[in-house]
Amino acid sequence: MMQGSFPSPGQRAVARCDALAVAPFSQAAEYLDRPYLSGAHRAALDQTAVWMQEAGMAVRIDPLGNLVGRYEGAQKGAKTLLMGSHIDTVHDGGPYDGALGVMIGIECADALYRAGRRAPFALEVIAFGDEEGSRFPAAMMCSRGMSEAVGQEALNMVDLAGTTLAEAMSAFGLNPEALANAVRAPNDILAFVEAHIEQGPVLETQGLPVCVVSGIAAQKRLRARFIGHAGHAGTAPMTLRRDAIAGAAAAILAVEDVCVHGSPDLRGTVGRVLPATAAYNVIAGEAEIGVDVRAATEAARDEAVRAIGARFETIASARGLGLDFTVIQDLPATRCDPVLMKVMGDAVAGQGLPLLETLSGAGHDAAVMAKLAPIVMLFIRCEGGISHNPLESVADDDVDVAVRVLGDFIERLALEDA
Amino acid sequence: MMQGSFPSPGQRAVARCDALAVAPFSQAAEYLDRPYLSGAHRAALDQTAVWMQEAGMAVRIDPLGNLVGRYEGAQKGAKTLLMGSHIDTVHDGGPYDGALGVMIGIECADALYRAGRRAPFALEVIAFGDEEGSRFPAAMMCSRGMSEAVGQEALNMVDLAGTTLAEAMSAFGLNPEALANAVRAPNDILAFVEAHIEQGPVLETQGLPVCVVSGIAAQKRLRARFIGHAGHAGTAPMTLRRDAIAGAAAAILAVEDVCVHGSPDLRGTVGRVLPATAAYNVIAGEAEIGVDVRAATEAARDEAVRAIGARFETIASARGLGLDFTVIQDLPATRCDPVLMKVMGDAVAGQGLPLLETLSGAGHDAAVMAKLAPIVMLFIRCEGGISHNPLESVADDDVDVAVRVLGDFIERLALEDA
Repeated sequence: MMQGSFPSPGQRAVARCDALAVAPFSQAAEYLDRPYLSGAHRAALDQTAVWMQEAGMAVRIDPLGNLVGRYEGAQKGAKTLLMGSHIDTVHDGGPYDGALGVMIGIECADALYRAGRRAPFALEVIAFGDEEGSRFPAAMMCSRGMSEAVGQEALNMVDLAGTTLAEAMSAFGLNPEALANAVRAPNDILAFVEAHIEQGPVLETQGLPVCVVSGIAAQKRLRARFIGHAGHAGTAPMTLRRDAIAGAAAAILAVEDVCVHGSPDLRGTVGRVLPATAAYNVIAGEAEIGVDVRAATEAARDEAVRAIGARFETIASARGLGLDFTVIQDLPATRCDPVLMKVMGDAVAGQGLPLLETLSGAGHDAAVMAKLAPIVMLFIRCEGGISHNPLESVADDDVDVAVRVLGDFIERLALEDA
Repeated sequence: MMQGSFPSPGQRAVARCDALAVAPFSQAAEYLDRPYLSGAHRAALDQTAVWMQEAGMAVRIDPLGNLVGRYEGAQKGAKTLLMGSHIDTVHDGGPYDGALGVMIGIECADALYRAGRRAPFALEVIAFGDEEGSRFPAAMMCSRGMSEAVGQEALNMVDLAGTTLAEAMSAFGLNPEALANAVRAPNDILAFVEAHIEQGPVLETQGLPVCVVSGIAAQKRLRARFIGHAGHAGTAPMTLRRDAIAGAAAAILAVEDVCVHGSPDLRGTVGRVLPATAAYNVIAGEAEIGVDVRAATEAARDEAVRAIGARFETIASARGLGLDFTVIQDLPATRCDPVLMKVMGDAVAGQGLPLLETLSGAGHDAAVMAKLAPIVMLFIRCEGGISHNPLESVADDDVDVAVRVLGDFIERLALEDA
């Protein structure tokens, strides 16, 4: 989709993500795998640093391995607008999850640099090292380390090969004892802006290239175990059964029913079903299901969890089943900043696009950065909503829209800031 | 429950099963495991042969390893009434599944022998070697080998250790080439009678010690695979999902619904659920369920299978899911002989007991022996309907009732035969 000799900013951002999707920027030859502090991570940082420098930015790597490119503002000492996303990937991931937000940030700086302009604030583009928990069991550790000090005990975490975080940091050329120096001073930060592929089907369904994110969902994970009576599929009459799998099936449909009839941002999923047996001829005596519930607010989520729990109790009681129901994870909601959302919404409208605000059901670095500064996110349409998958795909034109929206966002913020 | 110095026949039959539940009659020290052609099987045959001889029977082992004790009738050349069940067990099984039917047969012969009486027909008590498929992938091979020749190709079957049936037979002292000699001549056989624990809860629920079995259910096994669209639990709105697990859950409840509303002998079970993922945060793109359907007749079973298939189609279509629906096993129904059922029913009524006829949902050697001779079965109450489990339990008194019923059955058959 080259127009003339030069790629558009969107084309270039997409092409750069594609370039990073293969070795040496992936540690696997056959698929994309770029874990935190791997050789592939190092190669991606080196390449991205070159692109940042070409866009007029000064580059540094912070104590956690976050790559930070800085394009100074009109005045020294002014606040800094942070933009960016993560550069690590899941195992066998797609090229755009994370990396696209970094490349779009570089395009925004590049546009100012090519025009010889400076905003009243500095612009920093960040490539966070670890959002996915791609090597150590600690997702979003690198953004957390900027917003609050990561404790020294984190250095003892081990990856699958038994390497500690401290060892991996040293091997990467980082000083594990300097961990706390990654924390940024809130007073220096104007805002954090993250552009990210949607990883869901809403934009495609609505026929829109981008939308403003209103916040990141509150989440709870529940484990429900139904305990019945194991029996022989041939000998137990239907009316004398206490079938744990049938109870679990009713529970799965109850989760769906509660969440379909809730507000549009409510989501309930059973992706995990563990019956005690896998035999055709055994009535299962036990079955466990895992339930993931998300909503815009903790209150809405907890109301759904209460309704689901009540439905489970009714099911268990009607079927003579025991029920063991536990909350195993509780993540609060994050709201995007209303002022920043308004500015971003105006920038979207400035492209002649209808305004859609959507809740992010998935977690993002922005949720962690919200502890440091006001945040806002821009979602970009991705084909079929597919992500965490080599089939991840975005349209160059959509990314061009995103670059224009973010450029306009920076202009509008400069006016507000002025 | 000893009354006076001597155990009752029921007590003795139960005690003998208990004696066979430990080493050397089990190949495991901690639980009961007596596979076909194992050392434990050999030890159990040796011990059971002694008990048969003490009950006045001549003992032989047929070419398949079936132990046959024969108590001659009043006249040589008369037909033979076969009684018995299997002596092998499932892994970590219970003491009474199979063995109790053998021990009850011995008590019936013993009663005639102690009284110095002979029936107009010979009585043979059989301990079938393999009903459970306890070593080779061929359940009920030993009764099948009596009713029709087992093909020589069966000799090439291997157990988990890679030993062929031919090798295992030779090691047991059997001649693999004599396989076909196990077949009995139909003209010589009066009937086959099998006493067996119910392995279900009907007798306990009805408060009855025994009942006549009307037949063995027709059975089909179905595999249904629902194909949806994998997605992120946080990003896909409820209304845009094609969730294979939710479809499978609806299908599980549809199986239950169809079978609960069918005739009392209809049974439908989903004991096997295999989702493509076990993650909390993934909407499953695929989920497979295994369905076991049984009924008194092939027609009733197939009507239920058709109804289930139609419900699955409706579910898949309403949810935008693909559906792959396959019949993977088809076993016909076996009817017990009406004349023998009448005689057995009269014997039950002779004990002052209400008459209950029940369908066996589980398969038994009797279903295979029906190809050789008219069959009838007597079920004995077992605690909680529990079987294939070390907790299997029967009451001595119930077994005494069974021995009296079968003794009376033989008397009545002798009158009929006279």
